[in-house]
Amino acid sequence: MDKPQLLARLDELGLELPAVARPLAAYQPAIVGGGLVFVSGQLPLEDGELTAVGPTPSAVPLERAQGAARRATLNGLAAVDLALDGDWGRFSRVVRVGVFVNSDPGFTEQHLVANGASDLLFDVLGEPGRHARAAVGVNTLPLGAAVEVELVVEAAVSGGA
Amino acid sequence: MDKPQLLARLDELGLELPAVARPLAAYQPAIVGGGLVFVSGQLPLEDGELTAVGPTPSAVPLERAQGAARRATLNGLAAVDLALDGDWGRFSRVVRVGVFVNSDPGFTEQHLVANGASDLLFDVLGEPGRHARAAVGVNTLPLGAAVEVELVVEAAVSGGA
Amino acid sequence: MDKPQLLARLDELGLELPAVARPLAAYQPAIVGGGLVFVSGQLPLEDGELTAVGPTPSAVPLERAQGAARRATLNGLAAVDLALDGDWGRFSRVVRVGVFVNSDPGFTEQHLVANGASDLLFDVLGEPGRHARAAVGVNTLPLGAAVEVELVVEAAVSGGA
Repeated sequence: MDKPQLLARLDELGLELPAVARPLAAYQPAIVGGGLVFVSGQLPLEDGELTAVGPTPSAVPLERAQGAARRATLNGLAAVDLALDGDWGRFSRVVRVGVFVNSDPGFTEQHLVANGASDLLFDVLGEPGRHARAAVGVNTLPLGAAVEVELVVEAAVSGGA
Repeated sequence: MDKPQLLARLDELGLELPAVARPLAAYQPAIVGGGLVFVSGQLPLEDGELTAVGPTPSAVPLERAQGAARRATLNGLAAVDLALDGDWGRFSRVVRVGVFVNSDPGFTEQHLVANGASDLLFDVLGEPGRHARAAVGVNTLPLGAAVEVELVVEAAVSGGA
Repeated sequence: MDKPQLLARLDELGLELPAVARPLAAYQPAIVGGGLVFVSGQLPLEDGELTAVGPTPSAVPLERAQGAARRATLNGLAAVDLALDGDWGRFSRVVRVGVFVNSDPGFTEQHLVANGASDLLFDVLGEPGRHARAAVGVNTLPLGAAVEVELVVEAAVSGGA
């Protein structure tokens, strides 16, 4: 895959690669190490605003939480793009996705929320988008976000589109 | 170690390698990347049923939560087996275990629950079963599971028993 | 960087490398695998005592939680030192930091707590201390700790100071 192919596929899905939110401390959107790209926990930010705030389901219904997971994952792809300097020829596959779901104590469908992340990765990247996944509930998240999504991606050290 | 040795050791412990639960979305039980096997978060499923549901200690006493961590970890070994195509000659060592414990707010012995995971890995795999570990409490988990266990294992890309 | 340089830098910051707390089960402070060092979740222990216990902000104000994140991270560097046998010539960079913050349900500034970890890594290690990061809230942690910090560091397999 090269970047034009990625952008074309996103376009087919009615999506575009977002700008990467600038970290406000001494961390980075993504870091390459050991042949892997580690992406910082992504929030469902769109144009600088959270698309969903609070726990599911009391403040955020399931379907909207899935959309938030999808959005956070799209932001994660933008962080991967930055770490790879746009050279998607280096991209090999997604290896791990961590999904933290802001949850009411009785909510037990974090796996369904996480499908918003998993399905987006498969829709955009195809087979190399398949991944190992951990989905868990938490009682709160930064800025009150409905969801936080972390990615680990396998990538070659040097390019070749 | 080869697979017959693994199965023999499990048998000595009164255990067998379970079937791998099929993911219900675009993720996999385990993915190989960067010389590591990333295993999806495992629940304490046995024959398709959770062995322990709800927070510790109000719904699940400590000892039963430890057993659930043990069971989830056994399921994780089955996922490793699948990712390695049964070629345990490729297995090098366990590197990381993440244990999420469904916890009442005042419960602070997640490390004791996690010992169910750590001890199983050491009992089955010996020294290469030792690992780095993070054990944390969460207010809820998928399907209400008492525990969720994630593994990262080091493995050679190509085989050789 | 070599170990004398590390110790000198810590000294400039008024810090010293702590002793590594011995795990009480079949896990290790840190494990090397796949060119990475995985460090176990670190608590804010100082001379065997937790520096901060309970959720932020009801039991632990923000600033003290940041200090706890800083302390847990310093303990993590001691675990890295142990895994590298003190050979910091093998150290390449920090790649991932996970920060679990013991949080009241309405607390949404886990990212500010996590800055205690991020800033320490940058202060001690400079540019190679920059990392990808996930900061989440949880309802409880082992021993009631205010924070737990996990590290993944990139390191060469064989030395050379």
